[in-house]
Amino acid sequence: MTVTLHVCITCRANEPANDATLPMGARLHRALTDLGAPEGVRIVPVECLSACGAGAAVALSGPGRWSYAYGHMTEADAPEILQGAAAFATTSDGLVPWRERIAIFRKRSLARIPPIG
Amino acid sequence: MTVTLHVCITCRANEPANDATLPMGARLHRALTDLGAPEGVRIVPVECLSACGAGAAVALSGPGRWSYAYGHMTEADAPEILQGAAAFATTSDGLVPWRERIAIFRKRSLARIPPIG
Repeated sequence: MTVTLHVCITCRANEPANDATLPMGARLHRALTDLGAPEGVRIVPVECLSACGAGAAVALSGPGRWSYAYGHMTEADAPEILQGAAAFATTSDGLVPWRERIAIFRKRSLARIPPIG
Repeated sequence: MTVTLHVCITCRANEPANDATLPMGARLHRALTDLGAPEGVRIVPVECLSACGAGAAVALSGPGRWSYAYGHMTEADAPEILQGAAAFATTSDGLVPWRERIAIFRKRSLARIPPIG
């Protein structure tokens, strides 16, 4: 079953507004799509994940699963984010065992939300 | 359709561990259930919303809706949290208009996650 990696494309990550540069969130989204979504994952841009003080933010969700929001991401994190998303996709409930969870997901969790019932 | 207000009952909110006192999250959960859930809302305790640096944390979710996580809550916020949960329950998509959103939800958002599709 496909899970969704939402990427906030409006996150400025405390960078000043600058017409010449895409927001960090948009650059992260581009880096992720350039690398390509792993099997079972779709990458979806979104305008604002309401984590503006902790941008750039991404979120993982899927039917029947715990949802997760992560912050303080940069383009350099794109490969690891995709690795974490792939691990999330292989679970039935969204719970990747702690030891197998990538470091940036362990350290930069904003919140998780139980499966919607 | 019923929405869920999850309340982390293990959040210590930076209070030192103390056998004589319930964690802030558990006290918040008790304050909420003492007041009683508004129509269309169920209050569900949960052990850890992975927002340990921003506790006490709560989350609002429901079928077809955006989900929201909020942090830095205390027992004193219980009446407003229930008011915000009631407003969330009356929407079909979880999007309470900004002007109608309670102040603590405007100011203490940790993240929101789009409807699961």
